[in-house]
Amino acid sequence: MRALIYDGSLRFVRDAAVAQPGEGEALLRILKAGICNTDLELMNGYMAFSDILGHEFVARVEAGPDDLIAQRVVCEINVACGDCDFCAAGVPSQCRRRRTIGIDRYPGGFADYLIAPVANLHRVPDNVSDDEAVFVEPLAAALQVTEAVHISPRDRVVVLGPGKLGLLVAQVLKLTGADLVVPVRREKQARLLERWGILAVEAGSLPPGQADVVVDCTGVEDGFATALELVRPRGTIVLKSTYHGLPQANLTRVAVDEIRVIGSRCGPFDAALRLLERGLVDVTSMIEKRYPLERGVEALQAAAEQGMLKVLLDVSED
Amino acid sequence: MRALIYDGSLRFVRDAAVAQPGEGEALLRILKAGICNTDLELMNGYMAFSDILGHEFVARVEAGPDDLIAQRVVCEINVACGDCDFCAAGVPSQCRRRRTIGIDRYPGGFADYLIAPVANLHRVPDNVSDDEAVFVEPLAAALQVTEAVHISPRDRVVVLGPGKLGLLVAQVLKLTGADLVVPVRREKQARLLERWGILAVEAGSLPPGQADVVVDCTGVEDGFATALELVRPRGTIVLKSTYHGLPQANLTRVAVDEIRVIGSRCGPFDAALRLLERGLVDVTSMIEKRYPLERGVEALQAAAEQGMLKVLLDVSED
Repeated sequence: MRALIYDGSLRFVRDAAVAQPGEGEALLRILKAGICNTDLELMNGYMAFSDILGHEFVARVEAGPDDLIAQRVVCEINVACGDCDFCAAGVPSQCRRRRTIGIDRYPGGFADYLIAPVANLHRVPDNVSDDEAVFVEPLAAALQVTEAVHISPRDRVVVLGPGKLGLLVAQVLKLTGADLVVPVRREKQARLLERWGILAVEAGSLPPGQADVVVDCTGVEDGFATALELVRPRGTIVLKSTYHGLPQANLTRVAVDEIRVIGSRCGPFDAALRLLERGLVDVTSMIEKRYPLERGVEALQAAAEQGMLKVLLDVSED
Repeated sequence: MRALIYDGSLRFVRDAAVAQPGEGEALLRILKAGICNTDLELMNGYMAFSDILGHEFVARVEAGPDDLIAQRVVCEINVACGDCDFCAAGVPSQCRRRRTIGIDRYPGGFADYLIAPVANLHRVPDNVSDDEAVFVEPLAAALQVTEAVHISPRDRVVVLGPGKLGLLVAQVLKLTGADLVVPVRREKQARLLERWGILAVEAGSLPPGQADVVVDCTGVEDGFATALELVRPRGTIVLKSTYHGLPQANLTRVAVDEIRVIGSRCGPFDAALRLLERGLVDVTSMIEKRYPLERGVEALQAAAEQGMLKVLLDVSED
């Protein structure tokens, strides 16, 4: 099959092997996939990944349980052991022995086919398009903010880092009714936020120590420092992205001002599908470029451009 | 009056001025005071402090409201503005314009007298000794752990840094019934913990990723790294001390493992007094040395010795 492989360098191949699904697995034919910043980080050495990339995709089930055959699905990325304390507690996303599709010791979806655990699959409602369904994984991650932290409609909320994930987080937080503001540096993001009715302000213009909740989607050390500057005493910072290396962090400010720093990772796919089904989140406006799988190397280069929004890979016709 | 002043160097003086209490203030005659690690940090430049040191003390009211005259009191350390959003919300400990007794732009209690806001005073019950009352401020800070975080009796809890504050935190957490363990390096701390029925283990011997809650009382960068190592995914780290400079922190682990980092500062004096009144916490075993105020310079040197527990200053006879 065709596949986009990273193993020290990125390349497109036509002769990747197609595996057969085992017990509890399904064979997925990938329709479309999305490129995430994590893909770019994997190519910078994150997780020492060496396999087929891709963890945001929509697919059709080709082989597996009868009730899933020919169904359109999206796929949770954590492949859990089923045995550990977190699996027993119903939290497979934190499985202690998990692999992660397209991220950690499990092949990804930038390919014609993928074997995935049936337990990870969610049917896509008919009125959710393929383009929209590609966003279910990051939209679920955005919903993990409201899963992890109670955002009150009275809260003053700041989302830092209006990239692909930050814009989804902003849209989810908009739905709470909270007093939401997003500092932006680029006209493109400002226009999208304006279209969604979300207040965009110039980066650096917010007063310090006033926000009840700051969500850091920047993935850079400066982002955490800015979050600390903007949050009020006893306020909450939600970490929504990974950071390069070990950022310096003013932990004294965290202690003295009694700030809560909450990590947040993968989120609820079913809720993400409901938001899309109900038309409450606009993801298609975030699609900036499309490439066929054959041009995947080029697609990942485009995705790495500063300020680039979502780049999609068209894998196969439905 | 006599006082122990730090203004770039530490010195004992006999001619410090005694102020008169204004509206809403009381004149306190200090009986005994305790030396805290924060006093040592102030002498290393923290808060650019330049005044009389001391924020842990028991005193008798010499002038002020009638109902307080001659009463034995302890004193909250945050001198609040009464005007800001936090004061209006009933959280003067996070007042945006607060000064802090003996820490930040307000003289402390290593002196014969101190003027303090009446609102900050708490009467000491008769069955709580002066020695015990000196510990109310740090014991309240220890109680801020359970104020900030729900510790369940099923939780596996680790307290890191069994110094003066860590030992109080451990005693408070013992009362929750949780599965508590304290890594120790010194025989002295191990013996105290054993006396209190708290499990002490060799530092470095705990398995990674198992603790539901880790309270970091170390005040060093390594402490936070160890806390991150010991806490389970979705677990909680409570920061109970300030850190030198800007520690490097593995914020990626916080995000990916969805860890909660909770800062915690000053706590409830009334609850601390209740614990002492009920004999539920043993503080007097933590007193290691005593000095008269005149020998305060020596006392602070002793307090700076590695592993030293509480050093008390006897200020005046009651």
